[in-house]
Amino acid sequence: MSADLRLFDLAGADDDLRFSPNCWRTRLALAHKELPVETIAWRFTEKNAIAKSDQGKVPVLVAGDKWLYESWDIAEYLEDTYPDRSSLFGCPQGRATARFVNQWASEVLHPAVARVVVPDIPAVLHEKDKDYFRTTREAAFGRTFEVIAAERGDALAVLNRTLAPLRSTVSKQPFVAGAAPAYADHAVFGAFQWARVISSAALLEDNDPVSSWVERMLDAYDGLARSAKRMASA
Amino acid sequence: MSADLRLFDLAGADDDLRFSPNCWRTRLALAHKELPVETIAWRFTEKNAIAKSDQGKVPVLVAGDKWLYESWDIAEYLEDTYPDRSSLFGCPQGRATARFVNQWASEVLHPAVARVVVPDIPAVLHEKDKDYFRTTREAAFGRTFEVIAAERGDALAVLNRTLAPLRSTVSKQPFVAGAAPAYADHAVFGAFQWARVISSAALLEDNDPVSSWVERMLDAYDGLARSAKRMASA
Repeated sequence: MSADLRLFDLAGADDDLRFSPNCWRTRLALAHKELPVETIAWRFTEKNAIAKSDQGKVPVLVAGDKWLYESWDIAEYLEDTYPDRSSLFGCPQGRATARFVNQWASEVLHPAVARVVVPDIPAVLHEKDKDYFRTTREAAFGRTFEVIAAERGDALAVLNRTLAPLRSTVSKQPFVAGAAPAYADHAVFGAFQWARVISSAALLEDNDPVSSWVERMLDAYDGLARSAKRMASA
Repeated sequence: MSADLRLFDLAGADDDLRFSPNCWRTRLALAHKELPVETIAWRFTEKNAIAKSDQGKVPVLVAGDKWLYESWDIAEYLEDTYPDRSSLFGCPQGRATARFVNQWASEVLHPAVARVVVPDIPAVLHEKDKDYFRTTREAAFGRTFEVIAAERGDALAVLNRTLAPLRSTVSKQPFVAGAAPAYADHAVFGAFQWARVISSAALLEDNDPVSSWVERMLDAYDGLARSAKRMASA
């Protein structure tokens, strides 16, 4: 398939296992704009493949001769480049305020979900990524995956408390962005899709309003996130 | 002064000491809409004065025969009733996303600031409020003001971490709502004004980007928040 847009998208050993929360933000933003994209399975250690972006992380979106990175910057690029498509932000105030939601997701939610799911990730990784992943993540957490795994009960309790403002928001309106999903939802949902694809841990109680919002997000964009491949035992 | 709008506004023993974070949200929203308001000094135990609102907390905004309460609901009322004035939200997505910011402020930021400043509040309260305040707040915290005061160092460290998503947001743009302040800022700033009016505790380092945003908020609306009376020793 040829496409104008190409996305380097983190994959496991299985090319079809796409689990990066930040890449999922971009996938959903592209779907929101109804933009076709060719996704390219990429592994943590394939820094050379994205060298033209002058940094080493995905998502990297290639648009003609532009190599874009950082999920937020990619969202702003898509909004500004395709202003006639369904808006990711609604208006300048909506964009600015979605930035806060994005920062909360990246700085508060992602670490809280990581404490639950990180020990499940090595099992799905490509062999060439396993050492890199364990070394960098254990250094970031300051403890081994085995210790993190033993703390899962605590991690789930912390995550539950962390979700309070999301929970009350989606109790009062269908989506973070209101009546329909938009980038404020993409920014947050990436973390839940990450967990769904690579872990069998149940993050939420079924009767949690956040669960209902996750279900709505799985249905959005013709079920894009729901149809994604998950780890074998999930 | 006669005005179409009257606001029951929490006060200390001094009528002019107005310190409720939720009332400050409403004061700023009214200023944003350039709506004059008559504020009425109110104490925690004056439930009768706001009985027509069918609940016992302020802000209560009286608009003709309407008795409105809950700072968020008052903001939506002002936006919908005065659509031709400067918008509090910008667009429906902006309103929905500001709701998340509001919930984060109420559920995460307010408790974190309360742990720092609550022990300073009794000193400024009207005599008739002191027992009520201590009894209800110590029950909510599950410990005495003396214990909370002894934990201030820990509380400041927790608050510092809590501010991460606000800090990164206002490092990237002047206000939470973008180029100019709007309700997403009012919702968050109320907590800082609360601390400023009733406590001499320094919540932030001078070089914290959040401090710069607080200064911008103090200047906004002709310096409305900066000109507010503070406790004698603050």
